[in-house]
Amino acid sequence: MRIVDLIIKKREGIELSDKEIEFIISNYVSGEIKDYQMASFLTTVVFKGMTPKEIGKFTFEMMKSGKIIDLSAINGIKVDKHSTGGVGDKTTLVVGPIIASLGVPVAKMSGRGLGHTGGTIDKLESIPGFSVELTDEQFISQVNKIKIAVIGQSDNLVPADKKLYALRDVTGNVSSIPLIASSIMSKKLATGSDAILLDVKVGNGAFMTTIEEAKKLSEQMITIGKQLNKDVRVEMTNMSRPMGKAIGNKNEVLEAIETLKGNGSKDFIELCYSASATILKQAKVTDDEKEAYKMIDEVIKNGKALEKFYEFIKYQGGDVEKLKAKDFWNPSFKLEVFAKKDGVMEITSALDFGIVASKLGAGRISKEDSIDFEAGIQINKKTNDKVKKGDLLFTLFSSKAISNELVEELEKAYTINEKEVENKIILGKME
Amino acid sequence: MRIVDLIIKKREGIELSDKEIEFIISNYVSGEIKDYQMASFLTTVVFKGMTPKEIGKFTFEMMKSGKIIDLSAINGIKVDKHSTGGVGDKTTLVVGPIIASLGVPVAKMSGRGLGHTGGTIDKLESIPGFSVELTDEQFISQVNKIKIAVIGQSDNLVPADKKLYALRDVTGNVSSIPLIASSIMSKKLATGSDAILLDVKVGNGAFMTTIEEAKKLSEQMITIGKQLNKDVRVEMTNMSRPMGKAIGNKNEVLEAIETLKGNGSKDFIELCYSASATILKQAKVTDDEKEAYKMIDEVIKNGKALEKFYEFIKYQGGDVEKLKAKDFWNPSFKLEVFAKKDGVMEITSALDFGIVASKLGAGRISKEDSIDFEAGIQINKKTNDKVKKGDLLFTLFSSKAISNELVEELEKAYTINEKEVENKIILGKME
Repeated sequence: MRIVDLIIKKREGIELSDKEIEFIISNYVSGEIKDYQMASFLTTVVFKGMTPKEIGKFTFEMMKSGKIIDLSAINGIKVDKHSTGGVGDKTTLVVGPIIASLGVPVAKMSGRGLGHTGGTIDKLESIPGFSVELTDEQFISQVNKIKIAVIGQSDNLVPADKKLYALRDVTGNVSSIPLIASSIMSKKLATGSDAILLDVKVGNGAFMTTIEEAKKLSEQMITIGKQLNKDVRVEMTNMSRPMGKAIGNKNEVLEAIETLKGNGSKDFIELCYSASATILKQAKVTDDEKEAYKMIDEVIKNGKALEKFYEFIKYQGGDVEKLKAKDFWNPSFKLEVFAKKDGVMEITSALDFGIVASKLGAGRISKEDSIDFEAGIQINKKTNDKVKKGDLLFTLFSSKAISNELVEELEKAYTINEKEVENKIILGKME
Repeated sequence: MRIVDLIIKKREGIELSDKEIEFIISNYVSGEIKDYQMASFLTTVVFKGMTPKEIGKFTFEMMKSGKIIDLSAINGIKVDKHSTGGVGDKTTLVVGPIIASLGVPVAKMSGRGLGHTGGTIDKLESIPGFSVELTDEQFISQVNKIKIAVIGQSDNLVPADKKLYALRDVTGNVSSIPLIASSIMSKKLATGSDAILLDVKVGNGAFMTTIEEAKKLSEQMITIGKQLNKDVRVEMTNMSRPMGKAIGNKNEVLEAIETLKGNGSKDFIELCYSASATILKQAKVTDDEKEAYKMIDEVIKNGKALEKFYEFIKYQGGDVEKLKAKDFWNPSFKLEVFAKKDGVMEITSALDFGIVASKLGAGRISKEDSIDFEAGIQINKKTNDKVKKGDLLFTLFSSKAISNELVEELEKAYTINEKEVENKIILGKME
């Protein structure tokens, strides 16, 4: 078998066999197939796509390239939730405790933030003492004991994807739907869960900017799931606006706690309930949507979800007293932005909010950057809120002095209109 | 400027600017652009093609990457003839002396053979003493003195093409018409001629197997010529059968001499006359086709073309006495193939004849192989010749013992039919 012949075969539109795909991935990881050959293959995939069978096998072989986590020692149906990344997305911090308090095991590997999007691991690490480094045994035993544990991604998770992603990045082959789908799914599958809920963000703050692209990506990820006998469901959600009121790290943890207390903002509550209900169905706790919503309501109202959150934080070394203290979030600098006229608020760019938050210190521009956990943006007026001239719209926070230029950057990210605009949160569901 | 953005731009179908193409070639040659990035760019070109402006600039930049030969010291209009490669193609050895004897300067760089196709340089080197290594000064002065000189391709001729071709070879990107066209044309242009005649071979013994492909390639090469103000003309000629009666090296030199004496085979004469007439027009010796044919006839009949051939051989160190001697071609082994029935001969595969000749020792399987100048095939019965059972069809020659397996391989390359078949030599002309 020669990679040159397989590139030509793919170009001619002939489906590659399982053996051929195995050959490509394993020989690329071992270095037999060179970067320039893989670049040519990937570019060919950009033009010709992949059949369901090809993409399933491709993902499976990528998954197999590194350590596969064995979660079989965990009791119950393990459901993983993955977000394609957005601004102000603290969903895992709320959905995790809700479903764990309802008996569904949450054994989650999360990522760090990069660019304008935040990462769950960074948010958790903003809690003093919290550690995301557990051994496999600690991880599994914690899930069996308290139903929830969150760890960082192992360095050896899907090395084929790491190598492929780096190559796609420097060869203009990032934006290929089958390659994105197999990249996400190989990592999700390697973490050993039984079912997966994918939150595909759509809008200017997300990787998929249109609903059509999001649907294509969703279809391909569901296809991969079917090929590999996994129950994969997708919720496409709005990321043209930031999620909730907090963008940052410590302030997002606080917003998650408020939401678990029942005081969340409307958009974020809608997202958390919808995701939790779908997971309860995937975990076969109930197959009735209404029943699921009732169960969620109950653990919010009786405080069990919040209790589970604190228990989880404590188990991973987090100092709950410090978290509950008034000075947990204590940024040195703040800058307030006020309305210049009356009207109705509309945030038009989640992307710009994400970029400004990142520049304040809440995110990383490059992988090596460290994060200022105090930094971020607090949104006082969300889309479709009425505002009067002089009302507080947003507050910017940081441990360093805040430049007025950042406020100017935010100016292009919202408008004050005369009327309300459409503001759907859940744009579609697929399974 | 970043190559990643240019790959994406090309993928989106936007024409690249002159500066962008210059950036690509110069940075690839210098190593700033990596092989994996170029592989992705080339694959994108395979799918998206190139506009006339792009392909002209791409070829020009490739040409500029190495030494450009300055032929301005040669008097007259320099016309280069290039064949895309075939089996038994000794055209340069006949056309060169014909047009040189008619006053048109022939300053030719030729290649060596590889695979099933022969090369002019190998054929000339089969003549004892003949040298293809002249300095630029010797080369130019010889052309001014006797109107003809043939040298090997300089190592520094179009290094961008060498690097690109090697990359295309290992990434499945060889068979792209714009890339083939720019590869051929960059080398032709770097050799500094004023006009170019391209003999595009078509058929199973050629790189272009169908007339449609050949037309596309021809169009692109003419387009490149127009972009760079060169008079480029194309003759598409039949390479589903070997050209003439000899395949090899020494035997092809002898066939060229016979043809210059007026004793050539019909197909080969037709090709040589047509090419010579076109070149006479390009060199503005005459613009009348009939007149051109008359002039060619004259130098064949009065022996001036043959005289020019011997003069040329002598000037480059060739031993004309040895060449004229009976034992110039003196292979140790021969194997004759006879007709098993009556009928009309049809050679169906030039490719197989080329492969068998190469295996006899007449060609190279890999670049490092040396050539047996005695080896080859002599065709006694050509397509549409009547044969009787027992007639000699072909003779195989070599300096080593000849395996019967080679005869078996040839069996699939011809048939004996009841009727004649169509046998056009010149399949089309374009300019």
